[in-house]
Amino acid sequence: MENSKLMGCPSTSGDDYQLNLIAFLRHAANTYPEVEIVSKKHDGSLFRYNYQEAYQRVKKLANALVRLGVKPGDRVGVLDWNTHRYKELYFAISGIGAVLVQINPRISNEDRSYVINHSNVNLIFVDELLVPVIEPIAAELKNVEGYVVLTDNSLDDIKTGLKPLYSYEDLLSREEANYQWPELDEKSAYSACYTSGTTGKPKGVYYSHRNIYLHTMSLATAVSISHDDVVMQIVPMFHAQGWGVFFSAVMMGAKLVFPGRYSAEKPGPLVQLLIEEKVTVSCGAPAIFMPMLEHIKKLEVKPNLKGLRMLCGATEPPKAMMEGFRDLIGAEIVHVYGATETTPLVTINLLKPSLINIPEKEKWELRKKQGLPLVGIETLVVDSEGREVPRDGKTTGELLIKGPWVTKSYYNDTRSKEAFVNGYWRSGDAATIDENGYIKITDRFKDLVKSGGEWISSIDLENEIMAHPGVSEAAVVGLPHPKWEERPLALVVLREGSGEEVTRETIINFLSRRFAKWQLPDDVIFVKEIPKTSVGKFSKKRIREQYKGYFLD
Amino acid sequence: MENSKLMGCPSTSGDDYQLNLIAFLRHAANTYPEVEIVSKKHDGSLFRYNYQEAYQRVKKLANALVRLGVKPGDRVGVLDWNTHRYKELYFAISGIGAVLVQINPRISNEDRSYVINHSNVNLIFVDELLVPVIEPIAAELKNVEGYVVLTDNSLDDIKTGLKPLYSYEDLLSREEANYQWPELDEKSAYSACYTSGTTGKPKGVYYSHRNIYLHTMSLATAVSISHDDVVMQIVPMFHAQGWGVFFSAVMMGAKLVFPGRYSAEKPGPLVQLLIEEKVTVSCGAPAIFMPMLEHIKKLEVKPNLKGLRMLCGATEPPKAMMEGFRDLIGAEIVHVYGATETTPLVTINLLKPSLINIPEKEKWELRKKQGLPLVGIETLVVDSEGREVPRDGKTTGELLIKGPWVTKSYYNDTRSKEAFVNGYWRSGDAATIDENGYIKITDRFKDLVKSGGEWISSIDLENEIMAHPGVSEAAVVGLPHPKWEERPLALVVLREGSGEEVTRETIINFLSRRFAKWQLPDDVIFVKEIPKTSVGKFSKKRIREQYKGYFLD
Repeated sequence: MENSKLMGCPSTSGDDYQLNLIAFLRHAANTYPEVEIVSKKHDGSLFRYNYQEAYQRVKKLANALVRLGVKPGDRVGVLDWNTHRYKELYFAISGIGAVLVQINPRISNEDRSYVINHSNVNLIFVDELLVPVIEPIAAELKNVEGYVVLTDNSLDDIKTGLKPLYSYEDLLSREEANYQWPELDEKSAYSACYTSGTTGKPKGVYYSHRNIYLHTMSLATAVSISHDDVVMQIVPMFHAQGWGVFFSAVMMGAKLVFPGRYSAEKPGPLVQLLIEEKVTVSCGAPAIFMPMLEHIKKLEVKPNLKGLRMLCGATEPPKAMMEGFRDLIGAEIVHVYGATETTPLVTINLLKPSLINIPEKEKWELRKKQGLPLVGIETLVVDSEGREVPRDGKTTGELLIKGPWVTKSYYNDTRSKEAFVNGYWRSGDAATIDENGYIKITDRFKDLVKSGGEWISSIDLENEIMAHPGVSEAAVVGLPHPKWEERPLALVVLREGSGEEVTRETIINFLSRRFAKWQLPDDVIFVKEIPKTSVGKFSKKRIREQYKGYFLD
Repeated sequence: MENSKLMGCPSTSGDDYQLNLIAFLRHAANTYPEVEIVSKKHDGSLFRYNYQEAYQRVKKLANALVRLGVKPGDRVGVLDWNTHRYKELYFAISGIGAVLVQINPRISNEDRSYVINHSNVNLIFVDELLVPVIEPIAAELKNVEGYVVLTDNSLDDIKTGLKPLYSYEDLLSREEANYQWPELDEKSAYSACYTSGTTGKPKGVYYSHRNIYLHTMSLATAVSISHDDVVMQIVPMFHAQGWGVFFSAVMMGAKLVFPGRYSAEKPGPLVQLLIEEKVTVSCGAPAIFMPMLEHIKKLEVKPNLKGLRMLCGATEPPKAMMEGFRDLIGAEIVHVYGATETTPLVTINLLKPSLINIPEKEKWELRKKQGLPLVGIETLVVDSEGREVPRDGKTTGELLIKGPWVTKSYYNDTRSKEAFVNGYWRSGDAATIDENGYIKITDRFKDLVKSGGEWISSIDLENEIMAHPGVSEAAVVGLPHPKWEERPLALVVLREGSGEEVTRETIINFLSRRFAKWQLPDDVIFVKEIPKTSVGKFSKKRIREQYKGYFLD
């Protein structure tokens, strides 16, 4: 099927016009010059400017990049929080034809050094507070020829041995706000993100301009983003371009809010921005939305944020969280699904008009599903023979995905072969599809528990445990077992101040309402914290390593 | 600048995945199989089916086309009203790699014969009521090898000498609902439309799959179409694919309503469909919306259609019409602008958030403008030297347009040269752009009146005359004048039963409030009807021809 494209009658259309990311910012600057971009600085104050001013700075930055010797095809690394500068870097680096390499500050030094060297980065932009993340590996970075510090301070205030060292603002101040963007072949890479969390070294996904352009449009249609929206970028911009949510805002001329550096431990500033900037679209994972909800619960006056859509991915949104946001501030949690390999949006959980009258209880079950596939990509749920599974919401198969914003290989990586079949990317996710077309991820294939020849879903167990009011978080893994091959173990974090006494028996009894005896965990361990990956998901790899002998000893 | 595309670093994305129109219908059938399509039959009854059934029929149609000998690259003509079958033909003909040639039933026989021969059509699908439009020219159609009649009746009931003759429904009934769509090069033409209304023979615009795919997405974002919408296709589907509005509905899984054959003389059935099918998005020109409004005024019970967006193009929507729809049924008229050469959407008039608080009067003036350019295409307003005019809302220049859904030439036509400059299509429209980015078309360059070295806008005069409560329609043209080169003449159609007595002096006095003396028409002629083009615009060409000696004799 590949390369068998059939050419019909030639058109008269402008088919050579290339889809370049910079078109979105140019449009925003021309048509929505007055629309505001808000960005939180390290001192807590808010920096404000508009699309016209942002575009001026991006053109200056393009000139600065050229002056620093960056050429089309070069890789430029960026280490930053969610800021207006990161957004400027996305447009300027890709606009001149280079590739922005998203550097994850949360992975190991070893992996970070691998990413920078594998992608052949020769210039790194780094926020002043993230300099210590680069310093320990600087000696290993073979090709890096310079560092640009993202700071509001003077370069003299930055104490580091990194060199040569430049100041972002100094560079911009020296340039003209004129730049003639080249017309880039839309198949050129605009950015790269390396996946982590799987075994082995991170794998590189290099997104093309065409890819991000189409993904941005598709996201805007799926979420109905318009110039009336205010979009806050919570998903880290170093992780699959923050799901590309801020690009859709630029495309539609919507007001943008960048929260800067934030943490799940102190969700107050995020909630404050939501309220004060009147945010209508945001994005994140339960790992950050849960603390935000807890913070909102403590507010004396609850804000009215009716109309706010909070795109929620990474893990299944707990029902209590969805209800909490709805009841307390009128916000809607919208479950979305994707991966680094898919840019990432694959499905979105919207309630179809034909299902408006189903019982309330069914609606909540439905909302926990990953949702409907986006138009423009192709999804298939197939059994081990590659046949589509029936649309019964029960039969599990592997989810396969292909399309313009789905990767077709990993960059310079021999592991590409096993991850693709017939042009589809193998997600590794076990999924069902129901008669209404909603896809549900039931587990990662490698996270299913193989017990006595039967499969147990670790995700189903986790979600049920987390539905208990005394529980904050729970992770279930399958561990080697002398008799059954694998048996489930549950790690549970209790909710502080819930007033509930929760024991091993509480959990097992609670699960027994819904699960067969053989599906119940063999043991429950109460822990203070569940190990997580750099992007906030449970690190089952680390849990399995830590407890691997638990049922064997 | 052409062909100077710069290639950066190769991506790993699925960049070879081709944008094919059929993807939208396949998605709708997979993800919104239950969503309804309603189509009005000639007997007034409503045919109803859903996306799944529509897709089955499109696959049967694809097989039937292949069996009739249609090959990739071939041209297939279609003459139909706005029906579900026309929609099926768009997907099936283009899906197998052929080109659907949109045949306008309202142009002259000579032009129609030219279009069919120039495009090399070899098979024609024709509605039973439109057979008489083909019969008189059948002998001249050099390459046509067969006719397929779109009818609910038996083939024996169709009295015609056209042959060989097939029945659409008979053909479908013999085929299987299985078809393996080829992956078409996205630069292949999917459909062709010939422009009329200009001098000389019609000119062919051949739209690519890539073109219509991107246009469809852009339209969906601009109008915020979602699966909650009900879309009624009023703009004729033979005219720039009915602005592609129904494609956006398919893409988003929205319910679709096809009104079949309708007329401005009997707007009742259109209004009834609007109400009974709970339409939320529609499209048309004042020529059809005005009679619909008049019909609504006579309804005893006014329907509540709050949320209905009526995309309105071709000519400027009169203020009274916008107010009428808003006040009577809660519907919003949204001014859009484009041309056959631009697929057609170029601008849409949405109120920016930054302008929400301007005075009501300014808002109405703003709404009459053509609006903000769509993201994805580039527009420029330039003076005769090719320099951009200031954004002052006053200085007039020519509007230039380029992008993925803008044509770059006319098909096999030596007239292509004069219509393009630097990769831009020259719209021939005189326009201003204001400080907020809103474009206003002030006139066609050839419709500006050249009087004593100064320019007079015929459109400004027309709109002001039509603002008079006693006037239904007005057209102004410049006619040759012995002293001033040209002078304006106004043709006016009075509003029946308005109760106003309107004379030449009434009109001239009414205009004098806003226009200088030298800008006023030299005469006003009251007529029963203003000559119109096949797509409902004033035919100034015919008016000028009819009255060419008026100021000379």
